[in-house]
Amino acid sequence: MIKAGIIGGAGYTGLELVRLLLMHPEVKISVVTSRRYKGKKVSDVNPHLFPFIELEYEDVYTEEIADRSDIAFVAVPHGSAMEYVPELMARGTRVIDLSADYRLKKADYERIYKREHKDREERDAVYGLTELHPEVADADLVANPGCYPTGAILAVAPLVKEGIVKQVVFDSKSGISGGGVEPSERSHFPNLAENIIPYEVTSHRHVAEMRNELHVKVSFTPHVIPSIRGILTTAHVFLDDSGLKTHAELEGIYKQFYDDKIFIRLKRGTPSLSSVRGTNFCDIGFEIEEKSDRIVVVSAIDNLVKGGAGQAIQNMNLMFGLDEREGLWSPGLAP
Amino acid sequence: MIKAGIIGGAGYTGLELVRLLLMHPEVKISVVTSRRYKGKKVSDVNPHLFPFIELEYEDVYTEEIADRSDIAFVAVPHGSAMEYVPELMARGTRVIDLSADYRLKKADYERIYKREHKDREERDAVYGLTELHPEVADADLVANPGCYPTGAILAVAPLVKEGIVKQVVFDSKSGISGGGVEPSERSHFPNLAENIIPYEVTSHRHVAEMRNELHVKVSFTPHVIPSIRGILTTAHVFLDDSGLKTHAELEGIYKQFYDDKIFIRLKRGTPSLSSVRGTNFCDIGFEIEEKSDRIVVVSAIDNLVKGGAGQAIQNMNLMFGLDEREGLWSPGLAP
Amino acid sequence: MIKAGIIGGAGYTGLELVRLLLMHPEVKISVVTSRRYKGKKVSDVNPHLFPFIELEYEDVYTEEIADRSDIAFVAVPHGSAMEYVPELMARGTRVIDLSADYRLKKADYERIYKREHKDREERDAVYGLTELHPEVADADLVANPGCYPTGAILAVAPLVKEGIVKQVVFDSKSGISGGGVEPSERSHFPNLAENIIPYEVTSHRHVAEMRNELHVKVSFTPHVIPSIRGILTTAHVFLDDSGLKTHAELEGIYKQFYDDKIFIRLKRGTPSLSSVRGTNFCDIGFEIEEKSDRIVVVSAIDNLVKGGAGQAIQNMNLMFGLDEREGLWSPGLAP
Amino acid sequence: MIKAGIIGGAGYTGLELVRLLLMHPEVKISVVTSRRYKGKKVSDVNPHLFPFIELEYEDVYTEEIADRSDIAFVAVPHGSAMEYVPELMARGTRVIDLSADYRLKKADYERIYKREHKDREERDAVYGLTELHPEVADADLVANPGCYPTGAILAVAPLVKEGIVKQVVFDSKSGISGGGVEPSERSHFPNLAENIIPYEVTSHRHVAEMRNELHVKVSFTPHVIPSIRGILTTAHVFLDDSGLKTHAELEGIYKQFYDDKIFIRLKRGTPSLSSVRGTNFCDIGFEIEEKSDRIVVVSAIDNLVKGGAGQAIQNMNLMFGLDEREGLWSPGLAP
Repeated sequence: MIKAGIIGGAGYTGLELVRLLLMHPEVKISVVTSRRYKGKKVSDVNPHLFPFIELEYEDVYTEEIADRSDIAFVAVPHGSAMEYVPELMARGTRVIDLSADYRLKKADYERIYKREHKDREERDAVYGLTELHPEVADADLVANPGCYPTGAILAVAPLVKEGIVKQVVFDSKSGISGGGVEPSERSHFPNLAENIIPYEVTSHRHVAEMRNELHVKVSFTPHVIPSIRGILTTAHVFLDDSGLKTHAELEGIYKQFYDDKIFIRLKRGTPSLSSVRGTNFCDIGFEIEEKSDRIVVVSAIDNLVKGGAGQAIQNMNLMFGLDEREGLWSPGLAP
Repeated sequence: MIKAGIIGGAGYTGLELVRLLLMHPEVKISVVTSRRYKGKKVSDVNPHLFPFIELEYEDVYTEEIADRSDIAFVAVPHGSAMEYVPELMARGTRVIDLSADYRLKKADYERIYKREHKDREERDAVYGLTELHPEVADADLVANPGCYPTGAILAVAPLVKEGIVKQVVFDSKSGISGGGVEPSERSHFPNLAENIIPYEVTSHRHVAEMRNELHVKVSFTPHVIPSIRGILTTAHVFLDDSGLKTHAELEGIYKQFYDDKIFIRLKRGTPSLSSVRGTNFCDIGFEIEEKSDRIVVVSAIDNLVKGGAGQAIQNMNLMFGLDEREGLWSPGLAP
Repeated sequence: MIKAGIIGGAGYTGLELVRLLLMHPEVKISVVTSRRYKGKKVSDVNPHLFPFIELEYEDVYTEEIADRSDIAFVAVPHGSAMEYVPELMARGTRVIDLSADYRLKKADYERIYKREHKDREERDAVYGLTELHPEVADADLVANPGCYPTGAILAVAPLVKEGIVKQVVFDSKSGISGGGVEPSERSHFPNLAENIIPYEVTSHRHVAEMRNELHVKVSFTPHVIPSIRGILTTAHVFLDDSGLKTHAELEGIYKQFYDDKIFIRLKRGTPSLSSVRGTNFCDIGFEIEEKSDRIVVVSAIDNLVKGGAGQAIQNMNLMFGLDEREGLWSPGLAP
Repeated sequence: MIKAGIIGGAGYTGLELVRLLLMHPEVKISVVTSRRYKGKKVSDVNPHLFPFIELEYEDVYTEEIADRSDIAFVAVPHGSAMEYVPELMARGTRVIDLSADYRLKKADYERIYKREHKDREERDAVYGLTELHPEVADADLVANPGCYPTGAILAVAPLVKEGIVKQVVFDSKSGISGGGVEPSERSHFPNLAENIIPYEVTSHRHVAEMRNELHVKVSFTPHVIPSIRGILTTAHVFLDDSGLKTHAELEGIYKQFYDDKIFIRLKRGTPSLSSVRGTNFCDIGFEIEEKSDRIVVVSAIDNLVKGGAGQAIQNMNLMFGLDEREGLWSPGLAP
């Protein structure tokens, strides 16, 4: 059994790691940390997990976490993950960091996140978008992608690889669970219900990950919708002059690119958040605009699973030589 | 492997049976019927099930279903189930009927459902409220309870058994998935959102099941809330003069009654639909009103799981000598 | 023009007073207070009010508010209203208090709200449930009812007056705006969406107002539903032996009781929150249970209007000799 | 008093016309038609309108409607409006058509809507986007704009007029009331809740109106969100090389363009559907992307008011020499 530690186990991402790892046949959760709930049973604070987990939240030194874990999932806010990662790695524990701290080069990180990167080393983390980076299998440090980049990049990667894309506009719509477990103005029911809230419309930091992976002109605007889970990304893709294709050609490109990618489901129509609810799937559909250079590609993920905890476990599976699907293979909770 | 047939596999209850049975390690789905979708792949009509099921919907004679199944789940509307059950039983297939057709004596059924009961026999179906009827283990025909009675009866059964209850008012609030897969006035988003809809406020037929099981004065009013899944039942329990108890005494009564009932979770506070989402749990909490003869008991279930498909599978597990939890043992999908 | 001051104009009740008074042909808002937003334009903080109000939030002495206002609406939390009311009245300003501070006798208040009542006097406030207390017209101090009591009491008052009611169980479902403008655990979207939250199930303090007005055995349990506005109250009314009536008789009782009450609308079926959205109406429907002593009466109000600001203005209209409907006479915002 | 007839008064647009015209001081509704509800009182079918309207639905000849009306609002589906308009105009009744039938040249209409245009004449309807077409004042036939084009065109018209726009991508999110009063797959609560549904992602016919008005490269994709009312449009505007501007310059452009347009509210941040709920306002905010040629402009309208019935009444006001605000001047219903 793989011993897995979860650092930051009281937020939505950490809790989703717990929920999924509890169902994983090859994993035993060794430690779950939370300063706020130290000493309380995880299932007392989160009754949906009763009676699946006996553990209490702990607040222990990083070295102890390292000693008790074969792999550590770091699910604390960006800026904090870098306080744990060096020590974990120094003690030989493999790490999947779900924060933004290791997704970019340090210099880029500091410019974009507007804070100092406290890790002395420039670590060679693998960007854990599993379908595009099979080299996670050999990584000791995986930087798990942001929720928005996961859905956005997967939507257009096949077209970009063809070299026919001139420009992409990603317009994303996320459930509010991406905003975290703490009540806020934005998550206040009367503010979000019967509404849709655009935010950081030209400046969301996730765009840096998209540009890193895609190398085409990328624009990005996120919104919060009155839903709990899910991200639907509408990608407006503009092709260059050479790029005009038939639907069959495009379908061929997508099918070939995602041929053996078990968690990508290509759809005939547009995908739906309901179909991916609670799962690690990324559903993708596309449509060519007549007499135009535009293709609209739509992707749907569960932000907490494929956009977070699920993809982290998918990466762990590869890192430990397991079938990619272990612990993640279930139909969506529809309706 | 148990071969399971599902009659009526395109409604929400039938689909939930498919979703859950696909995860069941001891079951193989042998046939799924639907007249409307005959010949279509189940996962084409219901993309959340792709690629978990290869089967197509079929429309075959009951005898063929019987021949291909060790157990048949009947998930058609009440009034239709009685067209399948006699033939299935005649051919030795065990049956779990999720409709109302076998929950009551025929005479009661005809009076309450205002239609003729076409089965010539008065069959001795076991009422499949698993925690109260362990004799389902030996049954050949299980009448799976209604969604409302499941949550309502479980909430107050321990108190009723004590003989201290004078009267109960059940005020239930259900997600709209209980109303089925077909669009209707009530399920039309602009009618349900920002609203709560009471219906059949004095005449809902499920009250007959409650009275059958509880033998005290029972009143019942259901409502639909703007949620997809879940039933929260608020039971206003009035005790007779002998009945006044401390909280500790009540807790003792509930703990003893549900001692080995793995799917009942007793809560300190009030339960939440989030904690039971997608699961077979029934969460129960209660509070004594000061200087009063009233106790408020609140139960929460997922109407499609414990209130339908899940409880049916729980019954099947007992009927086939399996652990009650097989295929049903997972944490709630919170948030 | 009546000069109206609003003390506590940044909460939902205060803002609804602003919204409604801006449309009132006989009123001019003279002052709106808020410590938090002092100096900011009301319409900058609340963009839905732009460009209807030019005023800035102020933080001024009570005596100045009194001097600038013919009537003061006190929309601060209970416990704080009593700090304003004595001074306002001493200076001859008429007062409508929307908090709980003057709804009960001081002794009852202190017992139920578990805090000292700081007003030295026992003031003879009129309980402002307009339809039952026309004497508000002559009042200098009106204690505006709680949101729950408004819908609950109106639902059953005609039956209680007949002397045929033995017991009532009020099971109420409220939109979350009743919880106020501040984000909280309960108002956090992932906690409330796809859920319904019972709270203070045996101990909500509003029951005291109901008992004061009704003088029969009353039980009360409130819930929050995933909606912004509205309270639907399901009243389970149990009649004494003499009480059994036909539907026509009951309809006669309600029609007579509410004959000239323009804001009460009697319904054939069950009422809907959509129909009263944004309005001062209370819609009431009822149904007799066959072979039973139970009548189910359902009422629907907008908690911020008839359950708060609207009823306050209705009272003000009577106090100043205006038509009850002034500023309040508009159809519901359906859908 | 202006006598106003409403043809098609049982759909959401027709009902919103009724709701708003009932509050209009200069208008008397003379006739409301509906085949389905002929003979029923409007307020029986739509209880939110009780007791504001005494009329019954009628099903009468167009000529009678014309005789009884100074102005006729045609609120039937596209394809049907053209059956009424010629006769109405022939009899001298001014017409505001809320369908798509007169928004485009007949040839364009037939190509885009894929049906024959039965009106023998090419009528010179004025496109009723009030802020851009003051000539509605003199029109006898106004083609009221589609809901999506209203929010989209208003968002970018000032920039387009400057001649600096190269390309616009409109990504719109609409409440489901735009889909009409009839239950459908899309409006079925379990399908829409916890979801967002893109549809006609490259082929929605409203794009023709946008291109007619804007004369730049326009792409458009609509979505339905789990809300009743409102359209939020995110306009991704790409400027040509000459076009880069400071925020102050852009603000100047918008302020000047919309200087005297009372229903346009320019916002500092991003607009919200809550602020425009139930109103005729269009709220607009924008943000320049650093080091980029992109500006994101966001507009918010109530699809049934500014996107339908409200704008029609705004046009009527101008046609009859009234203040534009008559019957429409109220704050948004927030929260």
